[in-house]
Amino acid sequence: MTVTMPAGVQVARDLVGPAIEEAVNRLSADVRIVAAYHLGLADADGRPTRSGSGKALRPALALLSARAAGSKPEAAVPAAAAVELVHNFSLLHDDIMDGDTERRHRPTAWTVFGIGGAILAGDALLVLAEDLLLERPPYGIWAARCLSAAVQRLIAGQGADLAFERRDDVQVADCLDMAGDKTAALMACACSIGAVHVGAPATLAMGLAAFGANAGLAFQMTDDLLGIWGAPEVTGKPVGSDVRARKKSMPIVTALASGTEAGSALAALLARPGELTEDEVARAASLVEAAGGKERTEAIADSALASAFESLEQAEMPDDVRAEFAAIAEFITARTW
Amino acid sequence: MTVTMPAGVQVARDLVGPAIEEAVNRLSADVRIVAAYHLGLADADGRPTRSGSGKALRPALALLSARAAGSKPEAAVPAAAAVELVHNFSLLHDDIMDGDTERRHRPTAWTVFGIGGAILAGDALLVLAEDLLLERPPYGIWAARCLSAAVQRLIAGQGADLAFERRDDVQVADCLDMAGDKTAALMACACSIGAVHVGAPATLAMGLAAFGANAGLAFQMTDDLLGIWGAPEVTGKPVGSDVRARKKSMPIVTALASGTEAGSALAALLARPGELTEDEVARAASLVEAAGGKERTEAIADSALASAFESLEQAEMPDDVRAEFAAIAEFITARTW
Repeated sequence: MTVTMPAGVQVARDLVGPAIEEAVNRLSADVRIVAAYHLGLADADGRPTRSGSGKALRPALALLSARAAGSKPEAAVPAAAAVELVHNFSLLHDDIMDGDTERRHRPTAWTVFGIGGAILAGDALLVLAEDLLLERPPYGIWAARCLSAAVQRLIAGQGADLAFERRDDVQVADCLDMAGDKTAALMACACSIGAVHVGAPATLAMGLAAFGANAGLAFQMTDDLLGIWGAPEVTGKPVGSDVRARKKSMPIVTALASGTEAGSALAALLARPGELTEDEVARAASLVEAAGGKERTEAIADSALASAFESLEQAEMPDDVRAEFAAIAEFITARTW
Repeated sequence: MTVTMPAGVQVARDLVGPAIEEAVNRLSADVRIVAAYHLGLADADGRPTRSGSGKALRPALALLSARAAGSKPEAAVPAAAAVELVHNFSLLHDDIMDGDTERRHRPTAWTVFGIGGAILAGDALLVLAEDLLLERPPYGIWAARCLSAAVQRLIAGQGADLAFERRDDVQVADCLDMAGDKTAALMACACSIGAVHVGAPATLAMGLAAFGANAGLAFQMTDDLLGIWGAPEVTGKPVGSDVRARKKSMPIVTALASGTEAGSALAALLARPGELTEDEVARAASLVEAAGGKERTEAIADSALASAFESLEQAEMPDDVRAEFAAIAEFITARTW
């Protein structure tokens, strides 16, 4: 299955990219070099480059949400930039916490500039995001509140994810809560913040947030599936990487909770100390599937996506905007393996 | 020289402590346990305790600034809590970056909960601080902007401080800029945010901020002096600890820039690879003093404190409030060795 990048994403890059660059230029030199590197605006020596920037999905959603409210996308550029900055704040910090050494095919910022530099750059992007909105009363203030509520949930979700590593009693409900906080909350914010920023009625903003929350949940479930069965050329990670890392992702948690023989065999395999061999990783992935973990996760993704589309149908907006929202939701939940 | 804690500090603790506790209770369980531990509200297992909380200097200043504007201190409690939360956000993150293992006579949060937990708790306190203010329009919004401007400078200062470790060309001006960002900016914010939060005229807020910036600079210079000559029972660190760590603090930077023989001898000693012996630390401290580093730093501190008092005199406020501001400025710049 091949899915092409929705057109709105390139538009968002062109509109929001310069605003992000301008915002980053406000930072002090020592912090800016790390932020610019992480955002793909500069190499490790601070020389301008255009490699390794993100997909700009969240800015695209933010601009769409302004259009849903009948405004021009330009009106929501600060909100779109703010969401993207917050997303990158969380990537900078998560890469440290998760010990990840590569992102967007480049070494992660903490491996290049040290943990201190990456912590600070993340902090700076977070505050910058709030600043962009606080500078634009009256609706920017509301947008700032939406954003900081989403950030608090993002932090809660990452906290739960870290705690999962030390727990062996993670339930399906915990996993759903975690994904709701860690992924869906910021997606809900991205899908509604542009509307909030242009002063749209609360009913529209709430409808868009409901769409975003469900699309975000479906996105996370897809990511969990790709973490085990995704093609390495798509995910940039070896097959089975979440199994190898013994991550408490939804397929694994549902398999462990399945009460099946395959589930028990999986639990025994994962409880073995030391690194899993290639064969064991493959066997564990098969056991997850045999225990129904794949099917169950696909069902959660499908149901969340259906709810997202339902919210999208119910919200009043121009048809072309609705179609673009739908295209992005399809894009981020495409299962490519 | 003995200086007793100004009375306003205990008042601030009593007023602001419950607001901070209430705010922290909003955090998710996994993040809250780290934040509560760091703030001295709980032990490592989450059991309530009352050990190791900070001195509440910044909340005391924030409450005073509301009184300077003719309001009751109670009116500025959210602003005071926000400044204290931001201060603690920076401590949580700085302790990781600086590798510090002890704070307020307890193990630092990252040594207890891991780097990930401490990063997240810091992030959460930062967002919580902004939330407390954004919830209180109209003046809370202005207070939030003051606070986030201060946080951006705090981050810039910490970034410069980290960069200093890799530089051997740090000048006195760099050192002043760094202290202005890292310490003085948040102190200026603390001394004015209460006034901003109760809607005081900008002239008063600016006068208070000028007082705070200068008092903050004097405070940092005093801290730099204590870092070399402070009594261990006051600083909680061994004598000469900043020399041992080869920190680019003001006494050392001014000594190195002095063009004296002692300055050159100091440069040679600090350039030696490996850890310094006790004797070498003592010798380096003597060289800093002989090169005029102590005297010069004391002069900067004295001049900043004089400027602070000048701003304090010029600002219109009740006499008892002015006296309390002065008492805190004296307290934080007392040289105890």
